[in-house]
Amino acid sequence: MLAWISFLFHLLISFQINIFRLSFNLLIRINAMDQILFWLVPAASIMALCFAWYFHRQMMKESEGTPQMIKIAAAVRKGAMSYLRQQYKIVGWVFLGLVILFSIMAYGFGVQNSWVPIAFLTGGFFSGLSGFLGMKTATYASARTANAARTSLNAGLRVAFRSGAVMGLVVVGLGLLDISFWYLLLNAVIPEDVMTPTHKLCIITTTMLTFGMGASTQALFARVGGGIYTKAADVGADLVGKVEAGIPEDDPRNPATIADNVGDNVGDVAGMGADLYESYCGSILATAALGAAAFIHSGDTLMQFKAVIAPMLIAAVGILLSIIGIFSVRTKENAKMKDLLNSLAFGTNLSSILIVVATFFILWLLKLDNWLWISCSVIVGLIVGIIIGRSTEYYTSQSYRPTQKLSESGKTGPATVIISGIGLGMLSTAIPVIAVVIGIIASYLFASGFDFSNVGLGLYGIGIAAVGMLSTLGITLATDAYGPIADNAGGNAEMSGLGEEVRKRTDALDSLGNTTAATGKGFAIGSAALTGLALLASYVEEIRIGLTRLGTTELSLPHGDAVALQDATFFDFMHHYDVTLMNPKVLSGMFLGSMMAFLFCGLTMNAVGRAAAHMVDEVRRQFREIKGILTGETEPDYERCVAISTKGAQREMVIPSLIAIIAPIATGLIFGVPGVLGLLIGGLSSGFVLAIFMANAGGAWDNAKKYVEEGNFGGKGSEVHKATVVGDTVGDPFKDTSGPSLNILIKLMSMVAIVMAGLTVAWSLF
Amino acid sequence: MLAWISFLFHLLISFQINIFRLSFNLLIRINAMDQILFWLVPAASIMALCFAWYFHRQMMKESEGTPQMIKIAAAVRKGAMSYLRQQYKIVGWVFLGLVILFSIMAYGFGVQNSWVPIAFLTGGFFSGLSGFLGMKTATYASARTANAARTSLNAGLRVAFRSGAVMGLVVVGLGLLDISFWYLLLNAVIPEDVMTPTHKLCIITTTMLTFGMGASTQALFARVGGGIYTKAADVGADLVGKVEAGIPEDDPRNPATIADNVGDNVGDVAGMGADLYESYCGSILATAALGAAAFIHSGDTLMQFKAVIAPMLIAAVGILLSIIGIFSVRTKENAKMKDLLNSLAFGTNLSSILIVVATFFILWLLKLDNWLWISCSVIVGLIVGIIIGRSTEYYTSQSYRPTQKLSESGKTGPATVIISGIGLGMLSTAIPVIAVVIGIIASYLFASGFDFSNVGLGLYGIGIAAVGMLSTLGITLATDAYGPIADNAGGNAEMSGLGEEVRKRTDALDSLGNTTAATGKGFAIGSAALTGLALLASYVEEIRIGLTRLGTTELSLPHGDAVALQDATFFDFMHHYDVTLMNPKVLSGMFLGSMMAFLFCGLTMNAVGRAAAHMVDEVRRQFREIKGILTGETEPDYERCVAISTKGAQREMVIPSLIAIIAPIATGLIFGVPGVLGLLIGGLSSGFVLAIFMANAGGAWDNAKKYVEEGNFGGKGSEVHKATVVGDTVGDPFKDTSGPSLNILIKLMSMVAIVMAGLTVAWSLF
Repeated sequence: MLAWISFLFHLLISFQINIFRLSFNLLIRINAMDQILFWLVPAASIMALCFAWYFHRQMMKESEGTPQMIKIAAAVRKGAMSYLRQQYKIVGWVFLGLVILFSIMAYGFGVQNSWVPIAFLTGGFFSGLSGFLGMKTATYASARTANAARTSLNAGLRVAFRSGAVMGLVVVGLGLLDISFWYLLLNAVIPEDVMTPTHKLCIITTTMLTFGMGASTQALFARVGGGIYTKAADVGADLVGKVEAGIPEDDPRNPATIADNVGDNVGDVAGMGADLYESYCGSILATAALGAAAFIHSGDTLMQFKAVIAPMLIAAVGILLSIIGIFSVRTKENAKMKDLLNSLAFGTNLSSILIVVATFFILWLLKLDNWLWISCSVIVGLIVGIIIGRSTEYYTSQSYRPTQKLSESGKTGPATVIISGIGLGMLSTAIPVIAVVIGIIASYLFASGFDFSNVGLGLYGIGIAAVGMLSTLGITLATDAYGPIADNAGGNAEMSGLGEEVRKRTDALDSLGNTTAATGKGFAIGSAALTGLALLASYVEEIRIGLTRLGTTELSLPHGDAVALQDATFFDFMHHYDVTLMNPKVLSGMFLGSMMAFLFCGLTMNAVGRAAAHMVDEVRRQFREIKGILTGETEPDYERCVAISTKGAQREMVIPSLIAIIAPIATGLIFGVPGVLGLLIGGLSSGFVLAIFMANAGGAWDNAKKYVEEGNFGGKGSEVHKATVVGDTVGDPFKDTSGPSLNILIKLMSMVAIVMAGLTVAWSLF
Repeated sequence: MLAWISFLFHLLISFQINIFRLSFNLLIRINAMDQILFWLVPAASIMALCFAWYFHRQMMKESEGTPQMIKIAAAVRKGAMSYLRQQYKIVGWVFLGLVILFSIMAYGFGVQNSWVPIAFLTGGFFSGLSGFLGMKTATYASARTANAARTSLNAGLRVAFRSGAVMGLVVVGLGLLDISFWYLLLNAVIPEDVMTPTHKLCIITTTMLTFGMGASTQALFARVGGGIYTKAADVGADLVGKVEAGIPEDDPRNPATIADNVGDNVGDVAGMGADLYESYCGSILATAALGAAAFIHSGDTLMQFKAVIAPMLIAAVGILLSIIGIFSVRTKENAKMKDLLNSLAFGTNLSSILIVVATFFILWLLKLDNWLWISCSVIVGLIVGIIIGRSTEYYTSQSYRPTQKLSESGKTGPATVIISGIGLGMLSTAIPVIAVVIGIIASYLFASGFDFSNVGLGLYGIGIAAVGMLSTLGITLATDAYGPIADNAGGNAEMSGLGEEVRKRTDALDSLGNTTAATGKGFAIGSAALTGLALLASYVEEIRIGLTRLGTTELSLPHGDAVALQDATFFDFMHHYDVTLMNPKVLSGMFLGSMMAFLFCGLTMNAVGRAAAHMVDEVRRQFREIKGILTGETEPDYERCVAISTKGAQREMVIPSLIAIIAPIATGLIFGVPGVLGLLIGGLSSGFVLAIFMANAGGAWDNAKKYVEEGNFGGKGSEVHKATVVGDTVGDPFKDTSGPSLNILIKLMSMVAIVMAGLTVAWSLF
């Protein structure tokens, strides 16, 4: 407590002293243009938040429809909010524990930067806030979307999409706001005199990375908990409602139907928001840290500063272009499905093309070294994202052969549907992996000036590619978050008995959302892989800082050489710690990393299985015990199902999340730096491939079922349909729980390793 | 052609000249005791073959039973042999292509050792021969086992187990025979004068490794082809027979039943034999090569020789102890199931305990440096194997909670069975991975004298652990191969109408086989992982030889250092090629390696799905078109089903196999040495974990169904049973096609990389 008070006091004093120096520093060392450019970052973030608020207010002005619609929307909202409160309670305890741990490490043993505990907290807070705001909007928007769909398809699209845009803009706005705030704060309070200017920027950027860990931890709980919640409800609702009782999706007679709609909000909106907030910040922060590191011994502070703010600037420009893209999404009245798809695609494509042009311009304006080729790295990132998205679409959309053949395999029953789906998912990993590999090599070569040995700039290029991929997140996330809103609108329409025509329109909106979600998932997975790589490199930078804190000045190298710690390159660190593929510690770490990916998936799969089984039991019980549910005379007990999902998700999310946090710490304590790097890369390579496999298999099963429902192979109610429903049910946790959680596992393990680097350097068993 | 003739002529001449020097060399440089010890190796191999012949003859003396039994056994034998002939034809073409390629590389461009083409051929030949002989015995043994089971359970066990022992002994016998032959031949023909004695042994051992590639290639086709065959038949038979028509397993009315029984032989006997032949030889050869490398610049030829023959000696002693173990498997008349299990366990445990004692003795006798601790590495290997086996048993046996809970999940339908099974399989990867990691670290530390920087001896220790794990393969494989024989005996009994009592006995034998198979699979997967690691190290040795052939004498190191190629350590190679985790080429290779494991599984899963769908169509057609099948009045057309499986397996096995061969070559040509090492390790770590996941999920599904059939959760015919049958069907390709094929993928990619090292060193794009 005492340490805390003295620390806060110190903080206040130093902040007051340094706030004056801040503008001075910037003015002295950095010319006016660069300074102006930097202020684009907070400006863009505030602009994003303003537009989010504007879209939110616009949406709130719409009518929520009939009393029945209002009642249902309120029930879903209540369930979602009560779940989120419960989740934040548990996450709060975990955060408390971690902050105490970090404080002890920082103020007690000095193996940790003293800013870490607070940075960690703000990251978690903003990540949670993104999810919360996005979800709140979504729960208000669903009934309004359904009501607007009573007028026209176009009106429904506008309400749903602009509400999705709230989420997209909140995520990028809060992300850049947190980044700007910490950058300015640390720049002001970190004393100049104890270190050279180039090292100051390194300290700033690596300290900022720890707020990424807060975001990751929050995101993990949101994704895992939300994922378990939504799929327990969905699987439970489908298994008993659709398969056993034969009632349609979202039927009000199904007791789990409100829980299912709540699940869409907590899993697909709040969970995804926290996830992408984390990817967005992680990629920018890791790239900034790499930029600082790349120029660490050049003595060129200005260029270092430029390399640090370049990713932030690209993100800031991306926000402006996203807003333009969002406004460009509008269709004529009485638009057809194809027009809707085209108008959404137009918005995202417009943003992507503009960001390419803008990147060249902004990096030229910044006069960053090698700006031309570094801009090409941004293009590489965008292209890789698009290729992954397209490949996901090819493998999972019922417009193409793979999913159609998957539907056909239903002719021989559910077993062959599962076998073929797993086969399809595994095959579908080839194109994304090859795209990422080409992306890694290309962005590395571009940024490093085609010199493999220029590791610092090369890795910076990989980070820049990740930033490029995520730069237009404002609009891609809008198209993504729009999906669950449309889904919920459909649910609301069905339960409120709005009639065939409205339901058909909301179905069209929903189906459109599934297509855009495929692209969105490609971006999420691809950016996780690239961000993971950039974080790895940041880990090595943290090792340098950890060693400095321990008083090390020299790094010994093989054959008796040595190099000053300050001047050591990435490869020097690799050689010092023998992080080569013949080191048994590295190999052990890699085996453990691969295992972690599978273990984590297994835990989340089982969690869904268990929670869904409870839901099935409850729904069966209600059908059996509450007379008149199936005839529509009595209302089922929706709240109990909501409570079961909430409890299940809470209970089940803790163990996988803790394992993800503990594994890198334990590996570091046993095997040291080589083991941790092995763990991270093993987890990254296996986790990336596993995530694609699970996402695509799940998506393909979902759409294979839809393809049958569209009237192929016997249509709804046929044996083939039943077989594909089994596939869809298995696919639910694949694509919405385990698969997306892996993205976060990859990044969280790296973040934990980065934050714990000081401890790993100070002590390890081997 | 001309090159071939001149080469053969050269071979003859040099053989004649050198055969005289052979005994002289051995006598001069190696003292009498060591020489005598070496001859233990060929002696043990011949002994194994003699006992195999003896057991075969004994089995053939038994009566094959009634005319109906003879007829069925003949049909299965005919189907199996005709499949094997077809397979060898295709494999023959692939071998021809590869031999031509190797010949061009060796005699045309000189980037390849001139012995490679022939060594490659003998490896393939002996591997195929092992499968062939084992399968031939198995097809003769099934009816005889069924007939013996008419007398007593014990008589059935004896016939089946001794026939399985034929396979076990043939594999180890042919393996050591090939090794002895090549060791003596190369020792005789490689001229002494062009290199120092220590380098001669390196050349010998690394050349011998290439016969491992022949064995791997053969094994891959046998495993993949056999795996597709057996599961297409099994899935087809189950889906239509059990699920749709409701007739029991192995019912003669099912048209696919003969194909199913043929499948057990070609997949589980011939495929497994070729697989383990390859693991056995691979681990011994890789360890010998590591032994030679570890002493390369000590100048101590004697110690080097000892390190080379130590793994062979451990294997030779293992053969003797396996034979003792096999003879110790006998029960009293009227033994119960528990007695049978105990007597099998007694045999394998006896061999394992004796091998520990014998290893200490033999390495002490050999006076190998650090013999005490190296013997401990053997124990490490055995313990890791046992832990993996036990963990497999825990997760897949219906005597334990996981599988029982899996059965219970059938209450909510097939979808939850699949979700829970995948969750279970993924969780089950934790213990084996942790066991292997501890095994890697412990065997490395023991052999290196607790010095992490002593890479050469450390890696040798990992190899020795793999050899230890496989040393008693003679008996572990016997317990493994016994399973399909018992399975076929059950099929024969059912189809011949031998009555309830006999069928019950064969069921008991079959179920016993399932339990022992779990342990056997543990050994196969664990040994693949350790062998894979040892092969990686051998790859580095091949790089050295490749560089020597190119005239390189020095290896440049970071910071301007250099080291003589002859004296370069493993770490020097890593530093020279920058095989560190920050090299984008290494990272790219690792992503590709992980992807390869999934791609390969996806291809084989889809192959089974497609082939099974054809089988289902055919069985449905026969039920529909041939009247009187289901009433037992007409005999179904078994042969067509056999032909469908044969054709399906042939067609489907080519692409995955070729991809496995091409991937390391292509990666080498693009990314060079760092890329190849990344590919191998990425494939190894992901492939190992994926293989355990698939094997255990499949095994658990199988036994979850059996648990229900034993009368739990409603028993046979209930909804829960139907749900678990879906799980079992999905599990079939998991555990018997894709999972085991991954073992070979891991090793084959390493073998291809080793054989192609000369090319990789000579040219790569980056």
